[in-house]
Formats: sequence, C-alpha cells, structure tokens
Amino acid sequence: MAREVRLKGEESIVQGFLRPLAAGWPGAFGLSDDCAAVAPAPDHELIVKTDPIRAGVHFFDDDDAGDIAWKALAVNVSDLAAKAARPLAYTLAMSFPEAPTTGWMRSFAAGLEQAQDAFGCHLVGGDTDRAPGPMTLAVTVFGEERCGRMVQRTTCRAGDDVFVSGTLGDAALGLQVRHDQAPQVLSQEQRRHVLQRFLRPQPRLGLRAALRAYATAAMDLSDGLAKDLGRMCRAAQFGARIELASIPLSDAVRTACDAKVDSLKEMISSGDDYEILATVDPGSSDQFATLARAGGISVARIGNIRTDPEMILVDESGHKTDWGTLGYDHF
Amino acid sequence: MAREVRLKGEESIVQGFLRPLAAGWPGAFGLSDDCAAVAPAPDHELIVKTDPIRAGVHFFDDDDAGDIAWKALAVNVSDLAAKAARPLAYTLAMSFPEAPTTGWMRSFAAGLEQAQDAFGCHLVGGDTDRAPGPMTLAVTVFGEERCGRMVQRTTCRAGDDVFVSGTLGDAALGLQVRHDQAPQVLSQEQRRHVLQRFLRPQPRLGLRAALRAYATAAMDLSDGLAKDLGRMCRAAQFGARIELASIPLSDAVRTACDAKVDSLKEMISSGDDYEILATVDPGSSDQFATLARAGGISVARIGNIRTDPEMILVDESGHKTDWGTLGYDHF
Repeated sequence: MAREVRLKGEESIVQGFLRPLAAGWPGAFGLSDDCAAVAPAPDHELIVKTDPIRAGVHFFDDDDAGDIAWKALAVNVSDLAAKAARPLAYTLAMSFPEAPTTGWMRSFAAGLEQAQDAFGCHLVGGDTDRAPGPMTLAVTVFGEERCGRMVQRTTCRAGDDVFVSGTLGDAALGLQVRHDQAPQVLSQEQRRHVLQRFLRPQPRLGLRAALRAYATAAMDLSDGLAKDLGRMCRAAQFGARIELASIPLSDAVRTACDAKVDSLKEMISSGDDYEILATVDPGSSDQFATLARAGGISVARIGNIRTDPEMILVDESGHKTDWGTLGYDHF
Repeated sequence: MAREVRLKGEESIVQGFLRPLAAGWPGAFGLSDDCAAVAPAPDHELIVKTDPIRAGVHFFDDDDAGDIAWKALAVNVSDLAAKAARPLAYTLAMSFPEAPTTGWMRSFAAGLEQAQDAFGCHLVGGDTDRAPGPMTLAVTVFGEERCGRMVQRTTCRAGDDVFVSGTLGDAALGLQVRHDQAPQVLSQEQRRHVLQRFLRPQPRLGLRAALRAYATAAMDLSDGLAKDLGRMCRAAQFGARIELASIPLSDAVRTACDAKVDSLKEMISSGDDYEILATVDPGSSDQFATLARAGGISVARIGNIRTDPEMILVDESGHKTDWGTLGYDHF
C-alpha cells in the first residue's frame, strides 16, 4: 500500500498525475495552459457532452479509484457512442472534500488511462478544487462527426424497429451485489459479471458503423429503458410497443429474476446500463444487426415505434402489462 | 415575489427555463438531445475551458440567482478572453442539494441570458441533478480561434513588458463589502462599484484584437497576480520584476488601502478580478495599449519579464519588497 500522504497543491495533482494523460494531444499544452485547443477534422464538427458523477449518487466513496475514474469518462463517452461520434478529447473538473492521497491519485490516474486508451481519447484540460460535500468528477467529452450527420435522439419514425445493444438490468443487479443484497442463487461468476457491468460500463463504440448507416435515432440508456425510451418517443410525439420477452438479458439477470416478473421490470427500467437504444427502418433491420455484430456488439429488436403516443409493454402472451418502476429522476 | 414552488423533474428545469437560451444555436437541438454539435469556422479550432463554481467557495447561497448565473459563465469566458478566442457556446451542469424554486430559476435564467448576450455565446447542453453538498455550477465554454493561433500562457520572452487590464483588488474589496467588513471610509458609490466587480466579473473580450496582434503570452487573473504571474513565469523558466506603484487601482481600492501597504499587497494578490495578464515585446507596447483602448479596455504596464527566475516586487523607491500573501490554492 502506498504511503497515505495527502497531496498538497493543485499543481501536484495536475502535473504529478494527470499530465501524462495529455501527452498525446498537442492542443492540451501539457495541461500547463488555462485552455485547450480541439480541432475536428475538416468538414467535421465536435459532438459535446457533459455528465458529472458524484459520490453517493453515481458511485461510492470507497469504490476503487480506478473504477471511479473509468466510470467518470465512460458515462460521457457512452453518449458519444450513441451519437455515432468518434471520441477525441475530454476535460475533467474534480472537486474533493479533502485532498486525495498519492495512492488514491495513482489508482485514479491508472484507471483513467485505461479508459482513455480503451475509448481512444485524451485528457486536454480541467480543474481541481476542494469543496465540502461529495467528491464530484465532471467530465466534458468531445467527439467528432461529419457536419450535420450526428445521430439524434428525437428523429425516430413511426414503424421503426426499436433495438437495444447488449443486455439490460446488469448494472442494477451489480449494484445489489455491491450492497451485498443480490439473490443467493447467483454464482460467483455471475456476481463478478454484473458487478463489473456496474463499476466499469462499456461505451458501445463498436456500434458506430451500424448507427451511422442505419439508425434513424439513438440515445444511450443511462436512466433506464422506460424513462429513456419515453423521452425519445415524447420528443418525436410518437409512442412505442415493447415486448418484455424480447428484452435481452444476461444469465445473471435471468437467474435473479426467475419467477419474479416485477423484479425483472425493475431491473430493465433501472439506470446505469449504458447500452444503446436505437430505432431503425424495418427494411434495414437485418443489415443493422449484421453491421453491429461486425463491430462486436450484439443488438436485439425489442419492439417498434407507433403513431399512438402510448408507451405499451406486452408480456409473453401479447397482453399489455404495466411498466412497474419508471427509471430515475434526480428531483 | 414569485410563489416558492420547488420544481419537479429535471425536464421542468431544462425545458421550462433553459431551453430559450439555446434557441440561437441549431446544434443545441433545443436541449432535447443528449449531445450538442459545435463547429468552428473553417481553419479554426475550438478553445475549451471548464471551471466549476461552488456555493461557499466561489459564491454564496444567498447571492442573487442572476449574479450566480452571470459569474458561472463569466469566469469561464474570461479564460477565452485571455486566449483571444471568440466565445461560441457553453454547456452547464448544475447540481442542487434540493430542487430550486420557480422564482430562483427565473432569476437564474435571466442572469444567464444577460451574460450569454453580453459575451456572444449560446447554451448548447448540460445536465441537472440533485446531490448533497453545496450547489455547483460547472460550465464548459467553447470559443474559436484560427488553428494554432491561441495565445498561450507559457510563451513569454525575457525582456517582455508585463501588462494588466483594468484595475486589481476590486473583487477582494467587494468581498469585504459583501461581508460588511469593508473600511468605513468607502463611499456608497465605491462600495457599489467593487461589489459589482465581485458579483459580476467582466471578461475582457474587448482586448481580443490587441492580444491577437501583440501578446507573446496571456492568462486571466483568477487566483491573484502573485500566484498567476508566478505560474506564467515558472512554466517559461523566467522571472519578473513588478513595480508596486504601477499596478492600476480603482478609486475604491486606493481609498481603502491608503496608508496600509500590506493591505494593498493582499488585495492585488487576491483572486476573482478576472483581469488579463499579458506579456508584450517592448517594441510593441505602445501599439498594444492603443489597440486595447480602441477595444474599450485600459491596460497598464506593471513590469517586465527577466531571465532571472526570481519574482521581484519593488516599491515606489525601487527597493525590493515582499509579496505578502501569495494568492489562492484550493488545497
């Protein structure tokens, strides 16, 4: 264990631990300037997202520092993935109630490096300060896409198929594992899997080609299927019909939910999965799924968009069923 | 006074109060998407800065909501001003310990609109959540400048003249007024002036042409002259000689500090003035000052950069004097 020395001075944090993460981006000026320069390729624009995470809300103070760093970047890159944008750079504003130790900062920087290497982007700037209250990590991420080509959230069309990537509910179950409240029936391997899904969400960057070619609309699932699909539909003034039995589940979630359908609805409407919700013209659905697979991402068709603004969930027998819990709102 | 109804739901805050601030920027998608699109002009790059402000550290919970909003944007735009970049757009991530009231949000949005109109930029995205701890407003701002032309912090040269814009120490005195601790000798007009300087800092965007044409390096003064000039010099491995008598002061600061030189040093090394520190080749100093004046900004030559890495402050008689307090560090 590293000596638990608390760091003194903003510059010891920035220059001692974060500067190496900026080495690959000339416009970061080695984190020695107040601003960074970020240029998209010609005919491209920057796609921008900011989504801060806070101790006690999005992670726990005693989570591994590397996991916290990964999550801070991943939840933002996940939005770029949904927009089919290529990650370039990010800023990081950190607020601590007390100065971090060298050991904590070393783990944090290592986790951040793993994340930025995995996602293909660079730290270009930020801010560090001390304030009472929970630790806060505010990332703003910059991706690029051809001008006017960003896949939007609100542009789905009636009749479109609705797809989700990966599996839903894993992060919610992982949170139960984190709290030691998961069902006893889960194997060690299943526990490990869902815990990783909660701690280290994987932005679905492999879906980029499929989304660019075929998605009429897309967003990432950060607040749960019910709430996020509701936002997508409401903005377009459409509704949707979703088949509960078509929602893709991991072995772990299937095991945990067996014989407890309410628990299933709760999980698929929980947040933090960071899978992609996308709509595709039915005539392109096969090609979309094929191109997604070629990018290493499985996708499942879970329903379709309808002109009727109702959000319908149907069970295995085709009967309407209620959504149960409806996702997460901060207020 | 507006009825003190606390707002319900993130979307009532975003769609009810913030959406109009995004109307002028098509890539904001009416704040209905997860991401925004920001394109610099051809051959330009984006200049990026993030600097969150927090209740109890950078402002007070009971400050006017319009002033808080102004400051959240102004402290970030100030960095763009120092880099001679033209403001385009910004994101705003807000965290509240409890949902704001409609009256508070109305004032906040009005102050933010005044600020973005004054600075020439648009709200393009953000995030709203609730978390324990102080209210936090994290702006990330985007400006543009021709590729490779950003005025940097660390590129001053030995022999350069050192300039500051406006007057120093006003915000520190304004903070004393805010706390009812300012010297009795100040007039009402002087109190009002320095309080406004503390509450509504003015990014020196009028200095853009002068900086682009003549500055060898520049930064904004957020943490005080001593500390910020120290950073500028240290990175360049130079030092500086600053003449205390040349530092430009408002009537209010001059009145407050008369016969108390230690208090003067404290004020000029205090933060929050958001004036610009710039270095200029002595052969261009007159043109720099002329072009600054043409942009509506007064500048004063306060010393020069030297190869000797020492940071020297000299008094009216040309004798070395100590810097007193050395600015603000969050840790």
